[in-house]
Amino acid sequence: MRGEFDFINFVRRQTEKKQRPSGLAMGIGDDAAVVTARPGNTSVVTTDLLIEDIDFRRHWTPPRLLGHKALAVSLSDIAAMGARPRWTLISIGVPSSVWKTNFPQEFYRGFFALADQYDVALIGGDISGTPDRIVVNSTVIGEMKQQRHVLRAGARSGDLIFVTGKLGGASAGLRLLEAGGQAPDNHPSSRPSKRRGFNARELVMLRQLSPTPRVGWGIRLGEQRLATAMIDISDGLSSDLTHLTQASEVGATIEVERIPVDPLVEQVGMKNHEALALALHGGEDFELLFSVRPRNRARVPKEVDGVPATLIGEITDEAGRLQLQEGGRTRVLKPQGFVHFAGRGPSQK
Amino acid sequence: MRGEFDFINFVRRQTEKKQRPSGLAMGIGDDAAVVTARPGNTSVVTTDLLIEDIDFRRHWTPPRLLGHKALAVSLSDIAAMGARPRWTLISIGVPSSVWKTNFPQEFYRGFFALADQYDVALIGGDISGTPDRIVVNSTVIGEMKQQRHVLRAGARSGDLIFVTGKLGGASAGLRLLEAGGQAPDNHPSSRPSKRRGFNARELVMLRQLSPTPRVGWGIRLGEQRLATAMIDISDGLSSDLTHLTQASEVGATIEVERIPVDPLVEQVGMKNHEALALALHGGEDFELLFSVRPRNRARVPKEVDGVPATLIGEITDEAGRLQLQEGGRTRVLKPQGFVHFAGRGPSQK
Repeated sequence: MRGEFDFINFVRRQTEKKQRPSGLAMGIGDDAAVVTARPGNTSVVTTDLLIEDIDFRRHWTPPRLLGHKALAVSLSDIAAMGARPRWTLISIGVPSSVWKTNFPQEFYRGFFALADQYDVALIGGDISGTPDRIVVNSTVIGEMKQQRHVLRAGARSGDLIFVTGKLGGASAGLRLLEAGGQAPDNHPSSRPSKRRGFNARELVMLRQLSPTPRVGWGIRLGEQRLATAMIDISDGLSSDLTHLTQASEVGATIEVERIPVDPLVEQVGMKNHEALALALHGGEDFELLFSVRPRNRARVPKEVDGVPATLIGEITDEAGRLQLQEGGRTRVLKPQGFVHFAGRGPSQK
Repeated sequence: MRGEFDFINFVRRQTEKKQRPSGLAMGIGDDAAVVTARPGNTSVVTTDLLIEDIDFRRHWTPPRLLGHKALAVSLSDIAAMGARPRWTLISIGVPSSVWKTNFPQEFYRGFFALADQYDVALIGGDISGTPDRIVVNSTVIGEMKQQRHVLRAGARSGDLIFVTGKLGGASAGLRLLEAGGQAPDNHPSSRPSKRRGFNARELVMLRQLSPTPRVGWGIRLGEQRLATAMIDISDGLSSDLTHLTQASEVGATIEVERIPVDPLVEQVGMKNHEALALALHGGEDFELLFSVRPRNRARVPKEVDGVPATLIGEITDEAGRLQLQEGGRTRVLKPQGFVHFAGRGPSQK
């Protein structure tokens, strides 16, 4: 890329090659984008900041996976509202040394691969230089029928607690990366079917670097009004369950045996109790945690997009109390928010 | 502030103190915000990244004015679409040393002062640490009746060219700041009526640090379908007129005598030709540049919110050709994009 204008034109051409989505009157190339929601629909909006040396390290993050992750974390928020993602705006700041590499193209390659998978259109953004570090901010706008959004508040005593996918992989992957692990940089996309051929170490590193947002699950749970409350697991099960129960003014009991600990975590050499700790407290798995009325239990899909959901416990009426049940014994579960390697602060994620 | 959670609660309380705007189902405190556009309305969305030592210097930028400016640049984009701003999300990253000061509160004080002035509601954002520099990303969503948005494309030969306010002040202010000028940090808001008591040097520095987006003008021009094309002046008149004429596939002739050069620029000691150069090529005045059909000339308001608009020239059919007319002589006007002090790149602004 010769300069930033060339690059904006490159990105714009990428978006113009695609079919214009319905509802988009103006995309990249004016002062702002112009979009219209479908009649009777409501919009959901989220924004996430990723900062080098806080949220990621450049030397262990292939640019394509950073482009993927920047979008993935915001798509996960939209899924957690029960909405369908439609539009995205992305701001990137890169130092001039990085600008001259293939970083920008690779970043957008990863970004568009994920966006295209879910028919999310890039409609705007900002591009800037920075003195030394990379910074990315993603904004995603989703849509759903009015009154169908799923908040963190809404869980009632007796509701069943489900979680999608498997837990603990992303934080196990972070440990391997911190210990010098090298992630594959030829990872084509987030589709699980494309993940064949990677070994367990590579797969857990990809769980950290290239999380798959549960977009299909979010849409299904929202459209069918199945979830009474929902949150995505970005800070860790214990922390995010705390957020959900606090917002709903309830408590919860989780059965240890039911927690879907990612089997990869033990395969990469961690002990059973370490794997459980990562599943409980590790962050960035970006799975969905949701509650369902007992009468709707049978209506919860076995899986969506090949990803199952697991019943792990029950909402109780003891507001503020989280419990772990294991072999007839019950102990208190304290939220142990996953603290990222450089003191990443809490966010609205 | 003890920590970031306290701060998020502080910001959330600020938003909850205000009356809940119609159309807002969920603001800060869930995975995403939930908003509904008014029936028959269309949304416009813009996002802008501000990076320390690229877009601003910490030592000359009072935090309150940074909060103001972060929102102002995005509000200016919304105005340039002819829309009414409604919602905003703000991401801020600050190093821990700054976190411990009154920076966050002051930043939001400036932010909310401007947001409240135009009834724009803060509905989300992200907060993060950074290793050393401050970074801010603002997103603003506006609304207008369907088909009322004003693009850069749409100007036709014969259309009259207007610009709001006065030009050159922001870049003159930047020169003073670069030369060690000290801006007042007790500047309460962007309302011009509150600017009494400042001298000319302080006022031009405030033009740079605390620009006033032309929100009222944008709404008026959009609602009355007066502007055939519009852009905000962020890169400078010559550059932004180039953007408008390129998008419209037309040319333009500007009369030098009509350009509303900010009289403050000469008052702070710059020569007449320097002032004109800043008015033509200096950036960040955030005035609106728009074209109007000749038959609608009398319908253009004399002023909106106390800010006049000035007729400065005419659209021509010579696509790609910009001309300056002065005392019967005509010369070619080349875009000389204002390059910020550390090589700020172009953006969608």
